[in-house]
Amino acid sequence: MKYIESFRDSDNISDIYLIKHKQSAVTKNGKPYESLILQDKTGTIDAKIWEPNSAGIEDFDVLDYVQIGGSVTSFNGTLQVSVKRARKCREGEYDPADYLPVTSKNIDEMFASVLNYIEDMKSPYLKQLLEAFFIKDTEFVSAFRKSSAAKAIHHGFIGGLLEHTLSVANLCNYLAQAYPRINKDLLISVALLHDIGKTKELSCFPENDYTDDGQLLGHIVIGTEMISEKIAQIPDFPAKLAGEVKHCILAHHGEYEYGSPKKPALIEAVALNFADNTDAKLEAMTELFASSAEDGWLGYSRLFDSNVRKTGE
Amino acid sequence: MKYIESFRDSDNISDIYLIKHKQSAVTKNGKPYESLILQDKTGTIDAKIWEPNSAGIEDFDVLDYVQIGGSVTSFNGTLQVSVKRARKCREGEYDPADYLPVTSKNIDEMFASVLNYIEDMKSPYLKQLLEAFFIKDTEFVSAFRKSSAAKAIHHGFIGGLLEHTLSVANLCNYLAQAYPRINKDLLISVALLHDIGKTKELSCFPENDYTDDGQLLGHIVIGTEMISEKIAQIPDFPAKLAGEVKHCILAHHGEYEYGSPKKPALIEAVALNFADNTDAKLEAMTELFASSAEDGWLGYSRLFDSNVRKTGE
Amino acid sequence: MKYIESFRDSDNISDIYLIKHKQSAVTKNGKPYESLILQDKTGTIDAKIWEPNSAGIEDFDVLDYVQIGGSVTSFNGTLQVSVKRARKCREGEYDPADYLPVTSKNIDEMFASVLNYIEDMKSPYLKQLLEAFFIKDTEFVSAFRKSSAAKAIHHGFIGGLLEHTLSVANLCNYLAQAYPRINKDLLISVALLHDIGKTKELSCFPENDYTDDGQLLGHIVIGTEMISEKIAQIPDFPAKLAGEVKHCILAHHGEYEYGSPKKPALIEAVALNFADNTDAKLEAMTELFASSAEDGWLGYSRLFDSNVRKTGE
Amino acid sequence: MKYIESFRDSDNISDIYLIKHKQSAVTKNGKPYESLILQDKTGTIDAKIWEPNSAGIEDFDVLDYVQIGGSVTSFNGTLQVSVKRARKCREGEYDPADYLPVTSKNIDEMFASVLNYIEDMKSPYLKQLLEAFFIKDTEFVSAFRKSSAAKAIHHGFIGGLLEHTLSVANLCNYLAQAYPRINKDLLISVALLHDIGKTKELSCFPENDYTDDGQLLGHIVIGTEMISEKIAQIPDFPAKLAGEVKHCILAHHGEYEYGSPKKPALIEAVALNFADNTDAKLEAMTELFASSAEDGWLGYSRLFDSNVRKTGE
Amino acid sequence: MKYIESFRDSDNISDIYLIKHKQSAVTKNGKPYESLILQDKTGTIDAKIWEPNSAGIEDFDVLDYVQIGGSVTSFNGTLQVSVKRARKCREGEYDPADYLPVTSKNIDEMFASVLNYIEDMKSPYLKQLLEAFFIKDTEFVSAFRKSSAAKAIHHGFIGGLLEHTLSVANLCNYLAQAYPRINKDLLISVALLHDIGKTKELSCFPENDYTDDGQLLGHIVIGTEMISEKIAQIPDFPAKLAGEVKHCILAHHGEYEYGSPKKPALIEAVALNFADNTDAKLEAMTELFASSAEDGWLGYSRLFDSNVRKTGE
Amino acid sequence: MKYIESFRDSDNISDIYLIKHKQSAVTKNGKPYESLILQDKTGTIDAKIWEPNSAGIEDFDVLDYVQIGGSVTSFNGTLQVSVKRARKCREGEYDPADYLPVTSKNIDEMFASVLNYIEDMKSPYLKQLLEAFFIKDTEFVSAFRKSSAAKAIHHGFIGGLLEHTLSVANLCNYLAQAYPRINKDLLISVALLHDIGKTKELSCFPENDYTDDGQLLGHIVIGTEMISEKIAQIPDFPAKLAGEVKHCILAHHGEYEYGSPKKPALIEAVALNFADNTDAKLEAMTELFASSAEDGWLGYSRLFDSNVRKTGE
Repeated sequence: MKYIESFRDSDNISDIYLIKHKQSAVTKNGKPYESLILQDKTGTIDAKIWEPNSAGIEDFDVLDYVQIGGSVTSFNGTLQVSVKRARKCREGEYDPADYLPVTSKNIDEMFASVLNYIEDMKSPYLKQLLEAFFIKDTEFVSAFRKSSAAKAIHHGFIGGLLEHTLSVANLCNYLAQAYPRINKDLLISVALLHDIGKTKELSCFPENDYTDDGQLLGHIVIGTEMISEKIAQIPDFPAKLAGEVKHCILAHHGEYEYGSPKKPALIEAVALNFADNTDAKLEAMTELFASSAEDGWLGYSRLFDSNVRKTGE
Repeated sequence: MKYIESFRDSDNISDIYLIKHKQSAVTKNGKPYESLILQDKTGTIDAKIWEPNSAGIEDFDVLDYVQIGGSVTSFNGTLQVSVKRARKCREGEYDPADYLPVTSKNIDEMFASVLNYIEDMKSPYLKQLLEAFFIKDTEFVSAFRKSSAAKAIHHGFIGGLLEHTLSVANLCNYLAQAYPRINKDLLISVALLHDIGKTKELSCFPENDYTDDGQLLGHIVIGTEMISEKIAQIPDFPAKLAGEVKHCILAHHGEYEYGSPKKPALIEAVALNFADNTDAKLEAMTELFASSAEDGWLGYSRLFDSNVRKTGE
Repeated sequence: MKYIESFRDSDNISDIYLIKHKQSAVTKNGKPYESLILQDKTGTIDAKIWEPNSAGIEDFDVLDYVQIGGSVTSFNGTLQVSVKRARKCREGEYDPADYLPVTSKNIDEMFASVLNYIEDMKSPYLKQLLEAFFIKDTEFVSAFRKSSAAKAIHHGFIGGLLEHTLSVANLCNYLAQAYPRINKDLLISVALLHDIGKTKELSCFPENDYTDDGQLLGHIVIGTEMISEKIAQIPDFPAKLAGEVKHCILAHHGEYEYGSPKKPALIEAVALNFADNTDAKLEAMTELFASSAEDGWLGYSRLFDSNVRKTGE
Repeated sequence: MKYIESFRDSDNISDIYLIKHKQSAVTKNGKPYESLILQDKTGTIDAKIWEPNSAGIEDFDVLDYVQIGGSVTSFNGTLQVSVKRARKCREGEYDPADYLPVTSKNIDEMFASVLNYIEDMKSPYLKQLLEAFFIKDTEFVSAFRKSSAAKAIHHGFIGGLLEHTLSVANLCNYLAQAYPRINKDLLISVALLHDIGKTKELSCFPENDYTDDGQLLGHIVIGTEMISEKIAQIPDFPAKLAGEVKHCILAHHGEYEYGSPKKPALIEAVALNFADNTDAKLEAMTELFASSAEDGWLGYSRLFDSNVRKTGE
Repeated sequence: MKYIESFRDSDNISDIYLIKHKQSAVTKNGKPYESLILQDKTGTIDAKIWEPNSAGIEDFDVLDYVQIGGSVTSFNGTLQVSVKRARKCREGEYDPADYLPVTSKNIDEMFASVLNYIEDMKSPYLKQLLEAFFIKDTEFVSAFRKSSAAKAIHHGFIGGLLEHTLSVANLCNYLAQAYPRINKDLLISVALLHDIGKTKELSCFPENDYTDDGQLLGHIVIGTEMISEKIAQIPDFPAKLAGEVKHCILAHHGEYEYGSPKKPALIEAVALNFADNTDAKLEAMTELFASSAEDGWLGYSRLFDSNVRKTGE
Repeated sequence: MKYIESFRDSDNISDIYLIKHKQSAVTKNGKPYESLILQDKTGTIDAKIWEPNSAGIEDFDVLDYVQIGGSVTSFNGTLQVSVKRARKCREGEYDPADYLPVTSKNIDEMFASVLNYIEDMKSPYLKQLLEAFFIKDTEFVSAFRKSSAAKAIHHGFIGGLLEHTLSVANLCNYLAQAYPRINKDLLISVALLHDIGKTKELSCFPENDYTDDGQLLGHIVIGTEMISEKIAQIPDFPAKLAGEVKHCILAHHGEYEYGSPKKPALIEAVALNFADNTDAKLEAMTELFASSAEDGWLGYSRLFDSNVRKTGE
């Protein structure tokens, strides 16, 4: 299969792509045409059907997988596909994994690392809490392994939530060793749980968009409620510990303006906030660098509120 | 009984007061003495036992009710009690209602108004939700009727939470009539529920201080969880409505910086935020005016970030 | 008459519309054309004259009423009129009321409610002040009844200032009853007067744009000066009361950053600020909902700094 | 007369001072005493009457001029007067000019410079406006020459308003020459008028405190209204020019957060804002340096949000 | 030569212009064309080569000087050149001074004024420091005389850095006379040195863009390091004076948010900050006025966060 | 020796302490006394000499080591020493290490870890730069090993700068392994160098206060200049690398408001900013916990803008 990231001016293409977006329009001269966005796991590209009523163009819809025939052209410096033929495909003709962005790491291995952390837990209550999610709740496990960590910005791909969660847990593991005042079991637990609300805040791929509850409540409160429900089923779970776990989740964005209803009041909440933020920003910059073939300055980044530059080797 | 607000310079007093605070100290000349704060429902006053080891001074502790004999003096323009005799009292010698700040309104009548709003509810689901709290949960009802709405600033007295809740519901009732786009049942429901988390955020009088969960989670999240628990027990409660109710609670402070993890996204959430804020500020200014015998300018108020002035008749 | 809000793709139209905007341009191929915006009281729509020099196209100008013949097409998902014939109309051929946005309420009835509030005023000085504007100053009355309350956002239509003023006065009337510390006469007076400066800040419809003084001074200061002029003509108007009235006007935006040179220092100023803000935001959301046929989420609103959603029935 | 700034530990004093403040109090041992603040034009000092009922202590009140006998002592590193004798004086026994802070410059000469600027004015309308204040309104002239420019911070002395006004006008005169796009007559006029509202915002010395209107309206709006009244009496004063003059006054604090209801929109408003701010800050630092005998670092200044240091010679 | 600012619709042009920008593109119909920006010292204009492969179009590149033949047309209300002939010119055919924006003042005269200030310096150390830059360092002098003071906003032209520096020094000279607490030698010195880092922050014309070090370090730190290097070569330069000079440079933006790592702590630093800001804003408004033929309101300016208006004569 | 942290009410003491502060004062009754602060490495305590002229009290000064005889009393709940005898000691009578706060870790071992990082450096230029400081510049090494990292808040003790630097380098080492896009040599280098300016920003113990240059320039700019000086002595040090090193130092506070003149533009600058902030906050909370014997809530912390709580075991 010819991936979108490898398209070059004047290429002829003839492969199956996911239709991310589709809109009818007319040119300034009044001629109707169709405006599309094609997607595969390597990216997206604009496409136009200039003759929508011609013989080779069959009917299809958004999120269909469609066999596209056409050629690549450059318009205002941007590549674009001029579509000559389009045929809607049946399941089986394509592998969905080719069309959705996915982590470059091994999902099974990453999940095994999560389970290792749970295995090592000394607090019986925290261990039960984590097992209730990551071992016993198979529906949660399935969603957690597939979710992205965001619509965009960083870890916005299948397995992204797992990858981000593990990175944060690893960094917290380092911090717990370096700063002995930290309660390691508590910190590792909230690292593993901090973003579980995202399994309900964002819908599945290929949509990967905010759900109703995602917009009304947000993943911080959704996740806190998920934890409360599990805790209610664990006999004698200490109230003080429950409050500490939930506080760390509520405060993990660190500042009110980022949607945390509480500021970190425990050393574990402070550590989680830094670990989450550090991983998010370093991964975001890594993805930013990967998305550009340029060396040196990449222009202004809103996330970093600065022009950013790739460091030389 | 001689109330603290009526104390004047040179008065002799001989009555029972609640000991709010007690600390041992020594004068600059090395003489030990005791520093107290006496409280009744009309206010508090500093008191000193200059001769703590004299015959008339019995042993007592913070939050005891103590028979105080002594005289009122003025020190640096502030009144102060010089204590000559002190005797710890037994239950029955005093009426606790005389010693705690309490709403000036009738608690039974106010609570009846709350029940009226519930009676009028057309949505069967919202009605069941409200009944689950205000009718069936007697422990909640008991706490709700007694709680204050704050440690200080406004409605910081027994019945204050009920008084504030009813004022907000009344204002929301007006708004629902004036702005037909508002879903009245939803707005009245969230008005009645918006601060229920305060029954767990603050401990009972006479302490009336933040609880552990109050500090770690805050009344916004505590209240949202209380609602989720009740909703889970109501068959077929619509998920969309549940999301709307909880969103209004989460967003009722209006701004991230005031601890709301979400900004108002529904017209009912906008209306609740204004009603809550309007009642809080108008009651706060009313209490500020009542606390000063001065006419005209009362000096700088941090809450209003301005010098404030009593309007003339 | 066929209103703009009812236009659908492929409709043929032949009616009189107000020309809101007109600009000459050339296509990428160098062909000249005219770009227009047509307006009636239901909205606006883009229109193009692709053959500006053809026989059916007469000369006309911005703010003319023009008989338009043509057809509706969809371009990039947006409707547009392709104009074939255009003829400038004479006064009498059209009713201006069809072309300007206007309140859906009865202007006479609303103004009668304003006069009722003045009738009920007990303070002779405030009553004289209000009469000086709303009864004796016929030029002011005429402007006040027709003004909008804003260029956009909320109440941006003929009668909008009156509608907003009355809503604020009604809410203030409720607050004065609910919070007895409020001086009702003072609060109702400043509610009626708070935005009178807008009669000079904005020019008349159909322009409805900022005047020179509107931009240089703003309606808060303009309104305060209008009040000072009237007060100067009322014998023995108490200086203290004059200061209070003007303070409420100056502080009614509540925060420096919204153009208030003073923060509310009186309880009536606090109440007016909340009433004004509550009406503005609830009306803005009502208009936002009315402007969209969509149910559910309407996307991001800058005014509310949030995605907003229509509540279900 | 022995001025307060020259008091040293162990000095005996016997002179007349203004009583700025007076309060009755009792020592920790219950002994009553009087706490005073004495003032002359060189500063203030705390004083105590330890034996208020002794023979040499006559009755007097705040703002009385009192013949004080006593000695200077050092308490916690601060000088203090121990008062042994006190006698209230009659007018004629003292010269008020010795007791109030006053500009170190010549008031007549400064006022002559103001009149020179008016003399040079080419615009007949602006000239008439300035004459209406600075020549024809003798009550205004008298107040303007005596007012301070602030309660504290900078120019907080008799003649301070005149001194600040002239400094700002001089700097504006420089700017009008250096930047030819500036309308010099307009800029000089608004420089002379920018703070005239302070004659009503602050009461006269020795009180020098905010008036009722000062707190409710502020000097920016008061001054704008004073200008409107004078303009109304000048035949044919151009409306456009009137708007420009008033805009410069309204915008002269530059930012909403400093109480300006408008931001500078004219180059003259920008220039006035900078000239006002530059003079205020440079004079404030000059006064700060003069108030300390220390060399080098003077500690944290809230106005400059920094530790500040005297530059070496 | 026909300057760009004099181009009118339908003009034919045949002159040499600098190519500021060049990009290949295709029309919606698939036809390739070239999009250019032409520049001379009076401004820039868009240009199109609709037939890039025609006989009259020779090959050229960005920053070449090219003989352009074509005609001016209006597209969407904006002028544009339709290019028919294009020929790359050799050095000697054109005068670069005609193509770059340049100060309207005399560079030699301005630089002489700078030298005069140095001549008048009484402090031997500051005099040596200034001479080390403005007299002995010929490479610096050459760069300083040619640099702009900014990419845009104000003084964004050849000689702009010199013009801005002299204006700031002149204003500082005024302030040093008006406020005797200021150390004049120090203030004039830091005025002359405050923006020298811009000679390395921005590359030369015609690029005039941020250098690598400009983006990574900024002109404030670059300038401070340049001063440190020169000071290291002056025997016995007092450490205290060196700290004061460098502090004024570091603090000259006045606020952290504008990139100053320190807030002004010396009166000279306060004065320099105001002088720099005043000149920048008054020059920016002057340039804004000059760039528009309109009278009256010029629309919203982000720099001034306000609509701005030309004052009438 | 009896350390200050072990003092209890009624203890008699007779040991040598460092005099941190000394001030003469008089009681309200006019009796002179001396107010002291005693210090050893475990803390400080107030002390009073009520009879300064008695036989046992010899003359001494601030920063002297003095043999103190007296007793511990409790005043307003705070311990205080009542001094009966005081004798100034000679060098040799005491060990200064007992009197200054010092890291609890081994300075030699920590410094060896720093040298290990340098040893492992692959970039010859960065290795030379680090050696120029940490190996060849013995004066720097001596200062660096002894400096604190702050006046207060965190690492405010001898060896604190070394301890903080090593912690940040260790965390950066972890990050460089976890995020392969990071240039490890660059990140470790800037971690080791990021706070070297503090050796000149703060004076030596026991003063440990801001120096002149510390206040005027700050450690960020001082450190950048120190690096520039060393780089200038390394032949062929690449300009690009020099810019990157200095940028990381300049941006390491992350935000303008914390004194960084640049925001992080390189991934190494982002990582350094997080590592520095994480270590500072976790160490600050660790020190806060250690400073209080209380369990649970410790009250409001300005640094964390929240009440903070020790987590349970």
